[in-house]
Amino acid sequence: MHKSRLGVVVIDCEGGDLEQAAKFWSRALGRAVGKGDDRYVDLAGPDGELRVLLQKVEHPSRVHLDIETDDLEAEVARLEKLGAKRIGAVKRWVVMEAPTGHRFCVVRPQRPDFESGAMEWVDE
Amino acid sequence: MHKSRLGVVVIDCEGGDLEQAAKFWSRALGRAVGKGDDRYVDLAGPDGELRVLLQKVEHPSRVHLDIETDDLEAEVARLEKLGAKRIGAVKRWVVMEAPTGHRFCVVRPQRPDFESGAMEWVDE
Repeated sequence: MHKSRLGVVVIDCEGGDLEQAAKFWSRALGRAVGKGDDRYVDLAGPDGELRVLLQKVEHPSRVHLDIETDDLEAEVARLEKLGAKRIGAVKRWVVMEAPTGHRFCVVRPQRPDFESGAMEWVDE
Repeated sequence: MHKSRLGVVVIDCEGGDLEQAAKFWSRALGRAVGKGDDRYVDLAGPDGELRVLLQKVEHPSRVHLDIETDDLEAEVARLEKLGAKRIGAVKRWVVMEAPTGHRFCVVRPQRPDFESGAMEWVDE
C-alpha cells in the first residue's frame, strides 16, 4: 500500500528574475511570498490547499503538476501502468510524461495534511 | 470591492480523445471523472480544493491556471496594474498573459466556497 495525490502546482519561469515573478504571482493569486531561494519560491496559501511553487527553469515557461507520494518507486510504477512514461530522475524526484503529452513530477509529500488527505493505492 | 482567488487548474489536451485523457488523469490524480462533454471534463476532488478541469484544445497541450472572480472587469483591471496583458475575451471569460509569459484566464466563481475563501480587493 502507498499513498499519493496532486500536491503542487509549479509555475516554471524561464530565466529572468524570480523575485519579479514572485511579486506578480503572489499578488495575482493573493498568496504571500513564502520561503525561497534563487531557484524556488513558495507562494503560501490557505491550509489544506494545493501548494503553489515558482521555479526558475531554462526551458520555456509553463505550468506543471507534481504528484506527492510516500513511495516514489511504487507511485511511478502505478503511473507507468496507467500509460505514463518515466523521463528521468532528478535528485529526489522523478520526471514523467502523461499519455496526453504533459510533463509532471512525482515528489515526496509536500503538504502538511498528506497523511489524512492522500488517496491510498494497493500495490500489485 | 471585489473578490478573487486561484480557482481552477486546467489541463489543456491537444486534439485526440478527451475520454482517454480523463481516464488517465482521473486515475493518476485519484479524482473521479465528473460532469463533462466533448470539450470539458471535470475531475472531482475533495471539498474546498482547487477544481481540476480537462479541456480539449487545438493548441499544444499545456496546463493553465484560472483565477475566479465575482467581477471580471475589476479583476482584469487589477491584474493589468500588476503587469498582465489582456489577450482577448472568449465567451464569458478573459484570457490574459502574465509578465512571466504564462497565459491564464479570469473566470466567474468556480468553487462552491468562493464567497468564504476568496481574497477581497479594494477597487481603485
